[in-house]
Amino acid sequence: MAEYSSLLLENAINELSRLPGIGKKTALRLALHLLREDVSRTESLARSLQQLREKIMFCERCHNISDTAICSICSNHRRDENLLCVVEDIRDVMAIERTASYNGLYHVLGGVINPVEGIAPGDLTINQLVARLENEDIREVVLALPPTIEGDTTGYYIYRLIRQEKIKVTAIAKGVAIGDALEFTDEVTLGRSIQNRIPFDGR
Amino acid sequence: MAEYSSLLLENAINELSRLPGIGKKTALRLALHLLREDVSRTESLARSLQQLREKIMFCERCHNISDTAICSICSNHRRDENLLCVVEDIRDVMAIERTASYNGLYHVLGGVINPVEGIAPGDLTINQLVARLENEDIREVVLALPPTIEGDTTGYYIYRLIRQEKIKVTAIAKGVAIGDALEFTDEVTLGRSIQNRIPFDGR
Repeated sequence: MAEYSSLLLENAINELSRLPGIGKKTALRLALHLLREDVSRTESLARSLQQLREKIMFCERCHNISDTAICSICSNHRRDENLLCVVEDIRDVMAIERTASYNGLYHVLGGVINPVEGIAPGDLTINQLVARLENEDIREVVLALPPTIEGDTTGYYIYRLIRQEKIKVTAIAKGVAIGDALEFTDEVTLGRSIQNRIPFDGR
Repeated sequence: MAEYSSLLLENAINELSRLPGIGKKTALRLALHLLREDVSRTESLARSLQQLREKIMFCERCHNISDTAICSICSNHRRDENLLCVVEDIRDVMAIERTASYNGLYHVLGGVINPVEGIAPGDLTINQLVARLENEDIREVVLALPPTIEGDTTGYYIYRLIRQEKIKVTAIAKGVAIGDALEFTDEVTLGRSIQNRIPFDGR
Protein backbone atom coordinates (compact mmCIF):
# COMPACT_ATOMS: atom_id res chain seq x y z
CA MET A 1 0.00 0.00 0.00
CA ALA A 2 1.16 3.54 -0.72
CA GLU A 3 1.68 5.93 2.14
CA TYR A 4 -1.72 7.52 1.54
CA SER A 5 -4.85 5.52 0.73
CA SER A 6 -5.83 8.05 -1.94
CA LEU A 7 -3.92 9.30 -4.96
CA LEU A 8 -5.95 12.54 -4.81
CA LEU A 9 -4.76 13.08 -1.26
CA GLU A 10 -1.19 12.18 -2.21
CA ASN A 11 -1.22 14.68 -5.10
CA ALA A 12 -2.55 17.47 -2.90
CA ILE A 13 0.05 16.71 -0.21
CA ASN A 14 2.87 16.66 -2.76
CA GLU A 15 1.78 20.00 -4.21
CA LEU A 16 1.31 21.65 -0.81
CA SER A 17 4.64 20.39 0.53
CA ARG A 18 6.49 22.07 -2.35
CA LEU A 19 5.61 25.40 -0.75
CA PRO A 20 8.36 26.88 1.44
CA GLY A 21 8.17 25.90 5.09
CA ILE A 22 5.46 23.27 4.54
CA GLY A 23 6.45 19.66 5.11
CA LYS A 24 4.47 16.48 4.49
CA LYS A 25 2.81 16.49 7.92
CA THR A 26 1.67 20.10 7.66
CA ALA A 27 0.48 19.43 4.10
CA LEU A 28 -1.57 16.47 5.34
CA ARG A 29 -3.09 18.61 8.10
CA LEU A 30 -4.02 21.34 5.60
CA ALA A 31 -5.53 18.81 3.18
CA LEU A 32 -7.61 17.15 5.89
CA HIS A 33 -8.73 20.58 7.08
CA LEU A 34 -10.01 21.39 3.59
CA LEU A 35 -11.82 18.05 3.47
CA ARG A 36 -13.65 18.87 6.68
CA GLU A 37 -14.74 22.27 5.39
CA ASP A 38 -17.31 23.09 2.76
CA VAL A 39 -16.30 22.51 -0.84
CA SER A 40 -16.76 26.23 -1.57
CA ARG A 41 -13.83 27.03 0.74
CA THR A 42 -11.42 24.96 -1.34
CA GLU A 43 -12.83 26.45 -4.53
CA SER A 44 -12.34 30.03 -3.39
CA LEU A 45 -8.82 29.24 -2.15
CA ALA A 46 -7.88 27.63 -5.46
CA ARG A 47 -9.49 30.43 -7.47
CA SER A 48 -7.73 33.16 -5.48
CA LEU A 49 -4.33 31.55 -6.06
CA GLN A 50 -4.92 31.07 -9.77
CA GLN A 51 -6.19 34.61 -10.25
CA LEU A 52 -3.27 36.02 -8.28
CA ARG A 53 -0.77 34.14 -10.41
CA GLU A 54 -2.46 34.74 -13.76
CA LYS A 55 -3.66 38.32 -13.42
CA ILE A 56 -1.07 39.97 -11.20
CA MET A 57 0.86 42.86 -12.66
CA PHE A 58 3.91 44.77 -11.58
CA CYS A 59 3.77 48.55 -11.72
CA GLU A 60 5.56 49.73 -14.86
CA ARG A 61 7.04 52.64 -12.95
CA CYS A 62 8.10 51.35 -9.53
CA HIS A 63 7.78 47.53 -10.07
CA ASN A 64 5.62 47.15 -6.98
CA ILE A 65 2.93 44.47 -7.16
CA SER A 66 -0.25 45.97 -8.61
CA ASP A 67 -3.64 45.21 -10.13
CA THR A 68 -3.12 47.97 -12.69
CA ALA A 69 -0.34 49.06 -15.06
CA ILE A 70 0.58 51.91 -12.68
CA CYS A 71 0.21 51.10 -8.98
CA SER A 72 -1.91 53.01 -6.48
CA ILE A 73 1.15 54.67 -4.91
CA CYS A 74 2.62 55.91 -8.20
CA SER A 75 -0.77 57.22 -9.36
CA ASN A 76 -1.47 59.01 -6.07
CA HIS A 77 -0.78 62.72 -6.70
CA ARG A 78 -0.70 63.46 -2.99
CA ARG A 79 2.60 61.58 -2.70
CA ASP A 80 5.86 63.52 -2.85
CA GLU A 81 7.13 62.94 -6.40
CA ASN A 82 10.58 64.39 -5.61
CA LEU A 83 11.38 61.65 -3.11
CA LEU A 84 12.22 58.08 -4.16
CA CYS A 85 12.84 55.16 -1.80
CA VAL A 86 14.79 52.20 -3.24
CA VAL A 87 13.88 48.83 -1.68
CA GLU A 88 14.78 45.20 -2.30
CA ASP A 89 11.34 43.67 -2.28
CA ILE A 90 7.62 44.49 -2.31
CA ARG A 91 7.45 43.34 1.30
CA ASP A 92 9.68 46.28 2.16
CA VAL A 93 7.18 48.64 0.52
CA MET A 94 4.47 47.18 2.74
CA ALA A 95 6.66 47.47 5.84
CA ILE A 96 7.48 51.14 5.15
CA GLU A 97 3.86 51.96 4.27
CA ARG A 98 2.76 50.49 7.61
CA THR A 99 4.99 52.99 9.43
CA ALA A 100 3.00 55.91 7.93
CA SER A 101 6.32 57.83 8.09
CA TYR A 102 7.03 58.11 4.38
CA ASN A 103 5.10 59.95 1.69
CA GLY A 104 7.36 59.62 -1.35
CA LEU A 105 7.53 57.11 -4.19
CA TYR A 106 9.24 53.71 -4.34
CA HIS A 107 11.47 51.75 -6.64
CA VAL A 108 11.48 47.97 -6.13
CA LEU A 109 14.77 46.37 -7.21
CA GLY A 110 13.47 42.81 -7.13
CA GLY A 111 16.46 41.63 -5.10
CA VAL A 112 19.98 42.66 -4.14
CA ILE A 113 23.28 41.94 -5.88
CA ASN A 114 24.44 38.52 -4.71
CA PRO A 115 27.31 36.85 -6.59
CA VAL A 116 26.94 33.64 -4.56
CA GLU A 117 23.35 33.19 -5.72
CA GLY A 118 24.20 34.49 -9.18
CA ILE A 119 22.16 37.71 -8.89
CA ALA A 120 23.89 40.38 -11.00
CA PRO A 121 22.92 44.06 -11.39
CA GLY A 122 21.30 43.17 -14.73
CA ASP A 123 18.82 40.90 -12.94
CA LEU A 124 17.50 43.84 -10.92
CA THR A 125 15.57 46.95 -12.02
CA ILE A 126 18.67 49.18 -11.69
CA ASN A 127 18.62 50.33 -15.34
CA GLN A 128 14.98 51.27 -14.90
CA LEU A 129 15.95 53.24 -11.78
CA VAL A 130 18.57 55.20 -13.73
CA ALA A 131 16.00 55.89 -16.46
CA ARG A 132 13.53 57.15 -13.86
CA LEU A 133 16.11 59.55 -12.44
CA GLU A 134 16.62 60.94 -15.95
CA ASN A 135 12.93 61.29 -16.75
CA GLU A 136 11.36 62.19 -13.40
CA ASP A 137 11.95 65.12 -11.08
CA ILE A 138 13.55 63.13 -8.25
CA ARG A 139 15.62 65.25 -5.82
CA GLU A 140 16.39 62.64 -3.16
CA VAL A 141 16.95 58.89 -3.35
CA VAL A 142 16.58 57.06 -0.03
CA LEU A 143 18.36 53.69 -0.01
CA ALA A 144 16.30 51.39 2.24
CA LEU A 145 18.23 48.20 1.59
CA PRO A 146 18.82 45.35 4.03
CA PRO A 147 21.71 45.87 6.49
CA THR A 148 23.71 42.97 5.04
CA ILE A 149 26.85 42.71 2.92
CA GLU A 150 24.66 42.23 -0.16
CA GLY A 151 22.45 45.18 0.75
CA ASP A 152 25.50 47.42 1.37
CA THR A 153 27.10 46.28 -1.91
CA THR A 154 23.92 47.01 -3.86
CA GLY A 155 23.57 50.41 -2.19
CA TYR A 156 27.15 51.32 -3.06
CA TYR A 157 26.72 50.10 -6.65
CA ILE A 158 23.63 52.27 -7.09
CA TYR A 159 25.32 55.23 -5.40
CA ARG A 160 28.26 55.00 -7.83
CA LEU A 161 25.85 54.87 -10.79
CA ILE A 162 23.66 57.80 -9.82
CA ARG A 163 25.91 60.20 -7.92
CA GLN A 164 26.87 62.08 -11.10
CA GLU A 165 23.27 63.23 -11.25
CA LYS A 166 22.34 66.26 -9.16
CA ILE A 167 20.47 64.10 -6.69
CA LYS A 168 20.87 63.75 -2.92
CA VAL A 169 21.42 60.13 -1.92
CA THR A 170 20.55 59.10 1.65
CA ALA A 171 20.24 55.78 3.49
CA ILE A 172 17.89 54.73 6.28
CA ALA A 173 19.43 55.06 9.75
CA LYS A 174 20.79 51.83 11.17
CA GLY A 175 21.08 51.48 14.91
CA VAL A 176 19.55 50.17 18.10
CA ALA A 177 15.87 49.25 17.67
CA ILE A 178 13.39 51.39 19.62
CA GLY A 179 12.55 49.56 22.84
CA ASP A 180 15.53 47.19 22.64
CA ALA A 181 17.99 46.92 25.51
CA LEU A 182 21.54 47.97 24.62
CA GLU A 183 22.93 44.84 26.32
CA PHE A 184 20.98 42.60 23.93
CA THR A 185 21.89 44.52 20.78
CA ASP A 186 24.57 42.84 18.66
CA GLU A 187 28.05 44.39 18.70
CA VAL A 188 28.06 45.44 15.03
CA THR A 189 24.75 47.31 15.29
CA LEU A 190 25.63 48.95 18.59
CA GLY A 191 29.11 49.85 17.34
CA ARG A 192 27.76 51.44 14.19
CA SER A 193 25.06 53.31 16.11
CA ILE A 194 27.80 54.86 18.27
CA GLN A 195 29.97 55.78 15.29
CA ASN A 196 26.97 57.27 13.44
CA ARG A 197 25.71 59.24 16.45
CA ILE A 198 23.68 62.34 15.64
CA PRO A 199 23.26 65.70 17.40
CA PHE A 200 20.83 65.39 20.30
CA ASP A 201 18.03 67.93 20.18
CA GLY A 202 16.16 66.84 23.29
CA ARG A 203 13.54 64.71 21.51
CA MET B 1 -3.82 52.88 0.77
CA ALA B 2 -4.81 49.36 1.75
CA GLU B 3 -2.29 47.10 3.45
CA TYR B 4 -1.52 45.35 0.16
CA SER B 5 -1.11 47.20 -3.11
CA SER B 6 -3.12 44.53 -4.94
CA LEU B 7 -6.61 43.19 -4.29
CA LEU B 8 -5.60 39.93 -5.95
CA LEU B 9 -2.76 39.57 -3.47
CA GLU B 10 -5.03 40.52 -0.59
CA ASN B 11 -7.61 37.90 -1.60
CA ALA B 12 -4.98 35.17 -1.86
CA ILE B 13 -3.53 36.12 1.53
CA ASN B 14 -6.96 36.14 3.15
CA GLU B 15 -7.78 32.71 1.76
CA LEU B 16 -4.41 31.20 2.69
CA SER B 17 -4.48 32.61 6.20
CA ARG B 18 -7.80 30.87 6.89
CA LEU B 19 -5.89 27.59 6.85
CA PRO B 20 -4.88 26.29 10.29
CA GLY B 21 -1.45 27.44 11.46
CA ILE B 22 -1.01 29.96 8.64
CA GLY B 23 -0.98 33.62 9.61
CA LYS B 24 -0.88 36.71 7.40
CA LYS B 25 2.92 36.80 7.20
CA THR B 26 3.22 33.15 6.20
CA ALA B 27 0.38 33.62 3.69
CA LEU B 28 2.24 36.57 2.14
CA ARG B 29 5.42 34.51 1.92
CA LEU B 30 3.55 31.66 0.21
CA ALA B 31 1.81 34.02 -2.23
CA LEU B 32 5.08 35.74 -3.18
CA HIS B 33 6.70 32.33 -3.63
CA LEU B 34 3.98 31.32 -6.10
CA LEU B 35 4.46 34.61 -7.97
CA ARG B 36 8.16 33.86 -8.40
CA GLU B 37 7.48 30.38 -9.75
CA ASP B 38 6.05 29.34 -13.08
CA VAL B 39 2.30 29.79 -13.56
CA SER B 40 1.95 26.01 -14.08
CA ARG B 41 2.99 25.43 -10.47
CA THR B 42 0.09 27.48 -9.12
CA GLU B 43 -2.27 25.80 -11.55
CA SER B 44 -1.30 22.29 -10.52
CA LEU B 45 -1.52 23.24 -6.82
CA ALA B 46 -4.99 24.74 -7.28
CA ARG B 47 -6.14 21.79 -9.39
CA SER B 48 -4.89 19.21 -6.89
CA LEU B 49 -6.77 20.91 -4.05
CA GLN B 50 -9.99 21.20 -6.04
CA GLN B 51 -9.84 17.61 -7.22
CA LEU B 52 -9.09 16.40 -3.72
CA ARG B 53 -12.07 18.23 -2.30
CA GLU B 54 -14.50 17.43 -5.10
CA LYS B 55 -13.62 13.84 -5.93
CA ILE B 56 -12.51 12.38 -2.63
CA MET B 57 -14.55 9.47 -1.30
CA PHE B 58 -14.68 7.69 1.98
CA CYS B 59 -14.64 3.89 1.93
CA GLU B 60 -18.19 2.60 2.42
CA ARG B 61 -16.91 -0.17 4.61
CA CYS B 62 -14.22 1.31 6.87
CA HIS B 63 -14.71 5.08 6.23
CA ASN B 64 -11.05 5.56 5.42
CA ILE B 65 -10.25 8.18 2.78
CA SER B 66 -10.31 6.56 -0.65
CA ASP B 67 -10.41 7.14 -4.40
CA THR B 68 -12.89 4.29 -4.82
CA ALA B 69 -16.10 3.15 -3.11
CA ILE B 70 -14.18 0.43 -1.25
CA CYS B 71 -10.66 1.42 -0.19
CA SER B 72 -7.46 -0.39 -1.10
CA ILE B 73 -7.14 -1.91 2.38
CA CYS B 74 -10.68 -3.29 2.52
CA SER B 75 -10.40 -4.72 -0.99
CA ASN B 76 -7.02 -6.35 -0.32
CA HIS B 77 -7.73 -10.06 0.21
CA ARG B 78 -4.30 -10.64 1.75
CA ARG B 79 -5.40 -8.65 4.82
CA ASP B 80 -6.74 -10.55 7.84
CA GLU B 81 -10.51 -10.12 7.62
CA ASN B 82 -11.08 -11.45 11.13
CA LEU B 83 -9.19 -8.60 12.72
CA LEU B 84 -10.60 -5.07 12.96
CA CYS B 85 -8.79 -2.03 14.30
CA VAL B 86 -10.97 0.88 15.46
CA VAL B 87 -9.31 4.32 15.09
CA GLU B 88 -10.38 7.91 15.57
CA ASP B 89 -9.10 9.38 12.33
CA ILE B 90 -7.68 8.49 8.92
CA ARG B 91 -4.32 9.84 10.09
CA ASP B 92 -4.24 6.99 12.59
CA VAL B 93 -4.73 4.49 9.75
CA MET B 94 -1.71 6.02 8.02
CA ALA B 95 0.32 5.96 11.22
CA ILE B 96 -0.48 2.28 11.90
CA GLU B 97 0.15 1.31 8.25
CA ARG B 98 3.58 2.92 8.46
CA THR B 99 4.52 0.59 11.31
CA ALA B 100 3.97 -2.48 9.05
CA SER B 101 2.94 -4.26 12.28
CA TYR B 102 -0.73 -4.76 11.50
CA ASN B 103 -2.39 -6.75 8.74
CA GLY B 104 -6.09 -6.56 9.63
CA LEU B 105 -8.84 -4.18 8.60
CA TYR B 106 -9.79 -0.78 10.00
CA HIS B 107 -12.83 1.10 11.10
CA VAL B 108 -12.51 4.90 11.17
CA LEU B 109 -14.84 6.49 13.71
CA GLY B 110 -14.39 10.03 12.42
CA GLY B 111 -13.70 11.36 15.92
CA VAL B 112 -14.14 10.41 19.56
CA ILE B 113 -17.02 11.11 21.92
CA ASN B 114 -16.51 14.60 23.31
CA PRO B 115 -19.39 16.24 25.21
CA VAL B 116 -17.49 19.53 25.52
CA GLU B 117 -17.21 19.85 21.75
CA GLY B 118 -20.68 18.40 21.27
CA ILE B 119 -19.53 15.18 19.60
CA ALA B 120 -22.02 12.44 20.49
CA PRO B 121 -21.87 8.73 19.57
CA GLY B 122 -24.38 9.43 16.80
CA ASP B 123 -21.85 11.73 15.10
CA LEU B 124 -19.40 8.86 14.74
CA THR B 125 -19.54 5.68 12.67
CA ILE B 126 -20.32 3.53 15.71
CA ASN B 127 -23.62 2.21 14.32
CA GLN B 128 -21.80 1.21 11.16
CA LEU B 129 -19.21 -0.57 13.32
CA VAL B 130 -21.94 -2.57 15.06
CA ALA B 131 -23.43 -3.44 11.68
CA ARG B 132 -20.05 -4.61 10.41
CA LEU B 133 -19.64 -6.89 13.43
CA GLU B 134 -23.02 -8.44 12.62
CA ASN B 135 -22.32 -8.89 8.92
CA GLU B 136 -18.61 -9.65 8.78
CA ASP B 137 -16.60 -12.44 10.32
CA ILE B 138 -14.69 -10.30 12.78
CA ARG B 139 -13.16 -12.25 15.69
CA GLU B 140 -11.13 -9.51 17.31
CA VAL B 141 -11.66 -5.77 17.64
CA VAL B 142 -8.53 -3.78 18.47
CA LEU B 143 -9.30 -0.41 20.01
CA ALA B 144 -6.53 1.96 18.86
CA LEU B 145 -7.97 5.14 20.30
CA PRO B 146 -6.04 8.12 21.65
CA PRO B 147 -4.88 7.77 25.27
CA THR B 148 -7.06 10.63 26.47
CA ILE B 149 -10.24 10.84 28.55
CA GLU B 150 -12.27 11.14 25.35
CA GLY B 151 -10.47 8.18 23.77
CA ASP B 152 -10.98 6.05 26.88
CA THR B 153 -14.64 7.07 27.08
CA THR B 154 -15.20 6.18 23.45
CA GLY B 155 -13.43 2.85 23.89
CA TYR B 156 -15.55 2.00 26.90
CA TYR B 157 -18.74 3.03 25.08
CA ILE B 158 -17.88 0.77 22.14
CA TYR B 159 -16.86 -2.06 24.48
CA ARG B 160 -20.23 -1.89 26.25
CA LEU B 161 -22.03 -1.95 22.92
CA ILE B 162 -20.20 -4.88 21.37
CA ARG B 163 -19.20 -7.14 24.26
CA GLN B 164 -22.40 -9.14 23.99
CA GLU B 165 -21.13 -10.33 20.64
CA LYS B 166 -18.77 -13.28 20.67
CA ILE B 167 -15.83 -11.07 19.81
CA LYS B 168 -12.57 -10.56 21.60
CA VAL B 169 -12.00 -6.88 22.35
CA THR B 170 -8.43 -5.69 22.81
CA ALA B 171 -6.79 -2.31 23.16
CA ILE B 172 -3.37 -1.18 22.02
CA ALA B 173 -0.80 -1.41 24.81
CA LYS B 174 -0.32 1.80 26.72
CA GLY B 175 3.15 2.30 25.37
CA VAL B 176 1.88 5.43 23.75
CA ALA B 177 2.65 8.40 25.94
CA ILE B 178 -0.43 9.83 27.65
CA GLY B 179 -1.60 12.95 25.84
CA ASP B 180 0.31 12.25 22.62
CA ALA B 181 -1.38 11.89 19.24
CA LEU B 182 -0.92 8.53 17.49
CA GLU B 183 0.25 10.19 14.32
CA PHE B 184 3.22 11.74 16.08
CA THR B 185 4.29 8.57 17.91
CA ASP B 186 7.43 6.92 16.55
CA GLU B 187 6.91 3.73 14.51
CA VAL B 188 8.66 1.41 16.98
CA THR B 189 6.54 2.46 19.97
CA LEU B 190 3.30 2.46 18.01
CA GLY B 191 4.13 -0.87 16.32
CA ARG B 192 4.95 -2.54 19.63
CA SER B 193 1.82 -1.17 21.27
CA ILE B 194 -0.24 -2.87 18.56
CA GLN B 195 1.63 -6.15 18.84
CA ASN B 196 1.31 -6.09 22.65
CA ARG B 197 -2.38 -5.35 22.66
CA ILE B 198 -4.14 -6.69 25.75
CA PRO B 199 -7.70 -7.85 26.48
CA PHE B 200 -9.97 -4.87 27.02
CA ASP B 201 -11.76 -5.02 30.34
CA GLY B 202 -13.45 -1.70 30.30
CA ARG B 203 -10.71 0.16 32.18
